[in-house]
Amino acid sequence: MTGPGHSQSRNPFRTVDLIRKKRDGHEHSREEIEHLVHSYTVGHIPDHQAAAWLMAALVRGLSRAETAHLTHAMLHSGEVLDFSHMAARKVDKHSTGGVGDKTSLILAPLVAAGGLVVPMISGRGLGHTGGTLDKLEAIPGFTVKLSAAQFRQVLEECGCAMISQTEEIVPADRKLYHLRNFTGTVESPPLICASIMSKKLAEGIDALVLDVKTGSGAFMKREDDAVHLAELMVETARRMDVRAVALITNMDQPLGTHIGNALEVQEVLQVLRGAGAADLRTLSLELAAWMFYLGGKARDLGEGRRMAAELIASGAALEKFRHMVRLQGGDAGVVDDHTRLPRAGSTAIISSPRAGYITEIHCEHMGTASVLLGGGRVEPEDDVDPAVGIVLHKKVGDRVEQEEPLCTVHHNSEERLWGARLLIESCYEISDAPPAEVRPLIHRVIKDF
Amino acid sequence: MTGPGHSQSRNPFRTVDLIRKKRDGHEHSREEIEHLVHSYTVGHIPDHQAAAWLMAALVRGLSRAETAHLTHAMLHSGEVLDFSHMAARKVDKHSTGGVGDKTSLILAPLVAAGGLVVPMISGRGLGHTGGTLDKLEAIPGFTVKLSAAQFRQVLEECGCAMISQTEEIVPADRKLYHLRNFTGTVESPPLICASIMSKKLAEGIDALVLDVKTGSGAFMKREDDAVHLAELMVETARRMDVRAVALITNMDQPLGTHIGNALEVQEVLQVLRGAGAADLRTLSLELAAWMFYLGGKARDLGEGRRMAAELIASGAALEKFRHMVRLQGGDAGVVDDHTRLPRAGSTAIISSPRAGYITEIHCEHMGTASVLLGGGRVEPEDDVDPAVGIVLHKKVGDRVEQEEPLCTVHHNSEERLWGARLLIESCYEISDAPPAEVRPLIHRVIKDF
Repeated sequence: MTGPGHSQSRNPFRTVDLIRKKRDGHEHSREEIEHLVHSYTVGHIPDHQAAAWLMAALVRGLSRAETAHLTHAMLHSGEVLDFSHMAARKVDKHSTGGVGDKTSLILAPLVAAGGLVVPMISGRGLGHTGGTLDKLEAIPGFTVKLSAAQFRQVLEECGCAMISQTEEIVPADRKLYHLRNFTGTVESPPLICASIMSKKLAEGIDALVLDVKTGSGAFMKREDDAVHLAELMVETARRMDVRAVALITNMDQPLGTHIGNALEVQEVLQVLRGAGAADLRTLSLELAAWMFYLGGKARDLGEGRRMAAELIASGAALEKFRHMVRLQGGDAGVVDDHTRLPRAGSTAIISSPRAGYITEIHCEHMGTASVLLGGGRVEPEDDVDPAVGIVLHKKVGDRVEQEEPLCTVHHNSEERLWGARLLIESCYEISDAPPAEVRPLIHRVIKDF
Repeated sequence: MTGPGHSQSRNPFRTVDLIRKKRDGHEHSREEIEHLVHSYTVGHIPDHQAAAWLMAALVRGLSRAETAHLTHAMLHSGEVLDFSHMAARKVDKHSTGGVGDKTSLILAPLVAAGGLVVPMISGRGLGHTGGTLDKLEAIPGFTVKLSAAQFRQVLEECGCAMISQTEEIVPADRKLYHLRNFTGTVESPPLICASIMSKKLAEGIDALVLDVKTGSGAFMKREDDAVHLAELMVETARRMDVRAVALITNMDQPLGTHIGNALEVQEVLQVLRGAGAADLRTLSLELAAWMFYLGGKARDLGEGRRMAAELIASGAALEKFRHMVRLQGGDAGVVDDHTRLPRAGSTAIISSPRAGYITEIHCEHMGTASVLLGGGRVEPEDDVDPAVGIVLHKKVGDRVEQEEPLCTVHHNSEERLWGARLLIESCYEISDAPPAEVRPLIHRVIKDF
């Protein structure tokens, strides 16, 4: 164990004193936060001291200033990308994760088609929520593991690239995230903010649109919690001179109709062709409009929305998607022939037990059903089956007759189907009357400019 | 790192879920606490998870029931001594630590002389407070490292023995105490209670007298904190069927007149001869009276006090001390000739800068001055110089003339003397009028029977 005496000889702070300070609810200086992040990243602070500090920070909280210092220190724990040689503004979008949320795959090519650069570094799915990287890897040959040089090359050629985190980017977050997972210190808005924002700001972007989900399928079930995190992230971005906006969006039911990696790529192609589920299409256009506005391509949101709609109508967005897939080693043929995507061996229809109106589709359980089918992960090291998933035929508010199909399950195992079916059937609430209130898709916009 | 999946396969609890539970302020069951203590002791729970739990427990608190469960689980993490073959009741005393507090060395022989068994396992000094083991080791040849068999043998022969913690006793506490020291999780009453009580109850005692110090030289400066810890310890003892009482006693100035290991042994011999400082003598008799009462040797406190005074007057207590020293390998000749104790090379007198009344002797700084002289430890692995220390000639409330000696410093280094003198001089407050109020030696008695 590293004793107080040892750390004292290396720098002016005793780690145990900093732990005590946060434990007692006091505010850290920028230098103290930098010491903690730097010393932990290089291994001078052991895991047990970092764990004690994380728990103290979770329970006592971090101020806005501390959160910004933490983000800054984590950001600079590794390489910060610099695409300033490219004239166009660099923008990105981040979502806090939900079920059926495939907007990243739509936005990257759509916004790049509009003349901005989208250097998107994404994550994998865990638990009931899917991950952008898993969806991309459902495309045969597509690689998300690009070097910094390859990343730059794809961006220069087509304006967007979608990759996984590299070893060089924000090493402090990789280490802290792992530790938080084992020490009950995940659910802290300031720690979540610093983790998300350090990674996004390491992309060297000028502007960021945040999609903060709330509802039964979201990480934050309560809207207040989502708003609080959104405000923290937007303020942190402002303190670091990045224009940012956060949309608080609904995750009471899955977004769009397709859940599962290959199935979601299919739905992405539908939207890029001008079709697809209304909620997914609306949210994608809204997020794109904000990206165009913050990136200086649109004077207002209305113009941004029109731009996005035109880039889809003209086929430019779909063409950009095809280009990116090809540059990242994927089979671009999937764009015109979705049967080239992995397909599950069997399908099964789940029908409505009665006539009525759908008043609820429990979103988190729907995501868990997809995990049960093999489409997601329980532990970070689990493999995923790209082919399996669920296609919804009805959404909340829809009328349904008895025995009418509610959804189709794509599966590769009767046994897994059995468990998933039980769960899926329990997700639906069907009543005689339509739901009294369906919450809007976009609840609020949080901005700080 | 031990993942949630791994610990799940060994037992019904996921450690990370228990950390989250305490983090969110919920109460643990007995089984959950037992899992945490047992799994950590055997190494199935890593330090970083234990550290996160400790911080959550410190900030959120532990209930009385949880504190008792924790004490019980720690107690049973190792060997629990059993002296039930000895007919006499087994009693002990524990002090939360102060400056000049040498009552343990007086009480063990005094109470054993009264026919009770005192199986005392003690600790070392750290920071400004001294430790019983360091004081005993000032006696040439005295060994505190006895095996369980040797401990039993000394107890059978003379009724008291004073040793250091063995490897077999409460291993959970040794591991947790070390971790708490590095993770800012020391200052928690429930954790302190469980640490103290698990070690004391492992002695196989029937009754326990707790001396909880409060004041400028105590661990707990505020009386409320001392009372809270005392109540916790007394209730924990009751839940485990041990009779216990806690005395809240004053530590606004050093106890007695001698500070420093060999010097304190000298003062112990004075008290055992019926002399010594009034406060030290009074507190020793009071604690002994409670031990006699709880141990069933006295029908009430008055009888206990008389017994203690008689055992000193008759020389029986001093004889018992001599016997114990001899049985534990020490030079029993020190009893009649204190010059056989280690003696510092030089002495220096610190005189009063003015005439007046002593209104304060800052107790913690006085302890720190002794550490500066080499008599105590900054880090647990430091060596101590048994000979150095401070002898007070005046105490709070005493009248002093200009240039009259306040204290004598026993030292082995002019350089160390220089620093200690500066600190000691700053400890005294001298005013024209006597102090308005001197707090009593014994503030309160906390009992639960």
